[in-house]
Amino acid sequence: VPGTLVSSFIAAIEANDLDSAVAMVADDIEYDNVPMRTIRGKAEFRASLQPFLDATAEIEWVINHQVASGTPVEGVVMNERLDRFLVGDRWIEIPVAGLFVIRDGLIALWRDYFDLATFQSQMSP
Amino acid sequence: VPGTLVSSFIAAIEANDLDSAVAMVADDIEYDNVPMRTIRGKAEFRASLQPFLDATAEIEWVINHQVASGTPVEGVVMNERLDRFLVGDRWIEIPVAGLFVIRDGLIALWRDYFDLATFQSQMSP
Repeated sequence: VPGTLVSSFIAAIEANDLDSAVAMVADDIEYDNVPMRTIRGKAEFRASLQPFLDATAEIEWVINHQVASGTPVEGVVMNERLDRFLVGDRWIEIPVAGLFVIRDGLIALWRDYFDLATFQSQMSP
Repeated sequence: VPGTLVSSFIAAIEANDLDSAVAMVADDIEYDNVPMRTIRGKAEFRASLQPFLDATAEIEWVINHQVASGTPVEGVVMNERLDRFLVGDRWIEIPVAGLFVIRDGLIALWRDYFDLATFQSQMSP
């Protein structure tokens, strides 16, 4: 099922293993944080995640639900998550719903829906 | 597939047919607009939607993707939508990702993820 790739991808993020995560995305990946901005292309994708992973001591993305259609080669996966980040000595928690479109066995689109203010209010000192 | 119930539910909302929509939800429905609040129970559910439907001349919820697991009796459905509302002479548009949990053939949980500021900025005059 196409959900396996997404689960592996999220496990790589949680392990702070950016090389493995980037290996699972398409060259022309579209990475859209809906209330923020869209990143396009593998190099930009890596560059956008790197400082974020560097700043985070621990990452735990709890998947509450994950549903999928299609195949591991061409499919659609959606999940409901609680994305948790340990920044300094504080856990930041963001409720997220994510869409992943799989093409040629790689993540071609990753789009996360969340409330930006919920994130920002926790990031302010 | 469990997606059919959700598609019918959304069609009822678009048709401003609250009776039909309410008939598809469980007595103890949990309706959670993540950045806002959670409504519990059929009566509260109806009461929360009624003024909203009354204020809206047209409703169009475009489903970009919908994926599901389980059966029409017990299942999980997620969709990515663009929820459009005609308020006065203006279309309000909100990108949304929704989770629906089906229990006993009814919608027991409806949880929508979106950016509250994206909604509020369009509602202000």
